[in-house]
Amino acid sequence: MNEIEFWFDFSSPYAYFASLKIDTIACKHGRTVAWRPMLLGRAFQATGMKSLSLTPMRGDYARHDWGRIARRLGIPFRVPSVHPIVSTTPSRALLWIEENEPDKIVPFGRSVFRALYVDNLDVREDGVALSLAEGIGVHDLPALRAALSSIELKEKFRRQTESGIALGVFGSPFFFVDGEPFWGHDRLPLLDEWLSRGGW
Amino acid sequence: MNEIEFWFDFSSPYAYFASLKIDTIACKHGRTVAWRPMLLGRAFQATGMKSLSLTPMRGDYARHDWGRIARRLGIPFRVPSVHPIVSTTPSRALLWIEENEPDKIVPFGRSVFRALYVDNLDVREDGVALSLAEGIGVHDLPALRAALSSIELKEKFRRQTESGIALGVFGSPFFFVDGEPFWGHDRLPLLDEWLSRGGW
Repeated sequence: MNEIEFWFDFSSPYAYFASLKIDTIACKHGRTVAWRPMLLGRAFQATGMKSLSLTPMRGDYARHDWGRIARRLGIPFRVPSVHPIVSTTPSRALLWIEENEPDKIVPFGRSVFRALYVDNLDVREDGVALSLAEGIGVHDLPALRAALSSIELKEKFRRQTESGIALGVFGSPFFFVDGEPFWGHDRLPLLDEWLSRGGW
Repeated sequence: MNEIEFWFDFSSPYAYFASLKIDTIACKHGRTVAWRPMLLGRAFQATGMKSLSLTPMRGDYARHDWGRIARRLGIPFRVPSVHPIVSTTPSRALLWIEENEPDKIVPFGRSVFRALYVDNLDVREDGVALSLAEGIGVHDLPALRAALSSIELKEKFRRQTESGIALGVFGSPFFFVDGEPFWGHDRLPLLDEWLSRGGW
């Protein structure tokens, strides 16, 4: 069965919420999830939007909304002291892990979200990303450290962001199920229904 | 019990979809619905957004999304040949009906949405708005016709749009339940849950 593509920017709290649900939904339908970090700011150049935290009116609503969603889910959450962030470093680290220790993708992704939205750590720093990688058992930390400043990984992440934009990803989280796009954490119930019914 | 405020711009297909559901949800909880048309373009001036139909990437997604939502709901829908529209005329007509023949608010609102998204009529025209009003049994059509070009009604609608913005309405549809804001057609299940549980 085809993977569910989970496109996101670590800087998006809605992606954090979705990251706690998408694997369960996928599992229920015998699917796997392909985590696809990207820099959403590149899409904003096309749509003229800005990060929610920087947008009048929508920002106030979003901060209120994040809090009540977390309460509803019964999960810890706080708006990071720096937000939005440029999520290059943890995104590149995830890409490296995908290639080199793929069984660690989900633990690492969740660890980054938790560090950012629960522990208020500055995940933009190489040291933090490496420490999170160590915490979830990544073996070759020296190779990851070297990769974080390599041209190859930088270029790979740039290409992934471009391919997200080419697919039409303009917000986070954004999912594709057999090519069908779903934007937003609040569309997960519909994505679930789509998988059950095979479309409508 | 307090009313559920239903803020919307007739130019929003998502408001059309929500208009077919909100009364049922309200009824289930012993609530009524206050229909609050406004010009969303005024909020866009604050948020820097544009109508979906005019936004790269998001517009393509929205057109696809509108079609599949309509299929899922089993309702007729087509993107109007002119979209977005400036929805001043039907909005002012609704305000007049609210004041003068309030039992006709919901039939008129639904009639405008149907004219726009099913029959592809140009609801910006006074004649179309009056014909729709006649179709749902508005009695004093001459008074409505006169009001549509009156300073008083123009001013009343301007004030309503301003008060929507003051409340934080930046998208359509947008609901308030006892002051709690919900943005978007896809949040109706959460609004329903909020009413059942009294918040979370």
